[in-house]
Amino acid sequence: MEERFEISLLLDFYGCLLTDKQRDVMTIYYNEDLSLSEIAELNNTSRQAIHDTIKKCQKLLLEYEKKLQLKEKNQSLVIIKDSIIHRCSLIKDKINDNEIKAYIEDIEKDIIENL
Amino acid sequence: MEERFEISLLLDFYGCLLTDKQRDVMTIYYNEDLSLSEIAELNNTSRQAIHDTIKKCQKLLLEYEKKLQLKEKNQSLVIIKDSIIHRCSLIKDKINDNEIKAYIEDIEKDIIENL
Repeated sequence: MEERFEISLLLDFYGCLLTDKQRDVMTIYYNEDLSLSEIAELNNTSRQAIHDTIKKCQKLLLEYEKKLQLKEKNQSLVIIKDSIIHRCSLIKDKINDNEIKAYIEDIEKDIIENL
Repeated sequence: MEERFEISLLLDFYGCLLTDKQRDVMTIYYNEDLSLSEIAELNNTSRQAIHDTIKKCQKLLLEYEKKLQLKEKNQSLVIIKDSIIHRCSLIKDKINDNEIKAYIEDIEKDIIENL
């Protein structure tokens, strides 16, 4: 199950590098939880062909992550964002100055909306 | 010259997705500024073959950017980082509380070192 979740995440980051056909098969398999036979029927092909496509794409997605590490970098980013937001909240609890509060809220907004 | 700089930047982001050979040729051409003939001689091949490799890789790099937008996202990140650092500096100028100053310095450190 862990691998399933891992591949589904990688699909979010690198799905755009697959062909339309590959991405469709992977999305249906990982996000809509259809069986190989059901996907084969939808695509008018064999269960084995779908199995091969999924295996090939899994390998591609893992290779992209090994090279670009977008998933790993994103996980680090989430930790840093949480840490900054936590500190902003500590500062807001401690101050009364409205100008500083506004600066802190701008920082929080940038972190939440733009990072 | 702008295109040269653009491709050189894309090479930083997506060079890892090229083959070793492709990356070597592109790095020598864009970062070490050797001529096609000089690179051809180094690689024991023709000027035309090097020209074709460079054109093919330019196309690949531009396609990766169109799909993943890592360069564009990085440019946005630099602007957000600058904006947060600027606000941190305004807050530090305005406060005397050492605990808040320490929180702000932690935020600055996270932004500069980890983002």
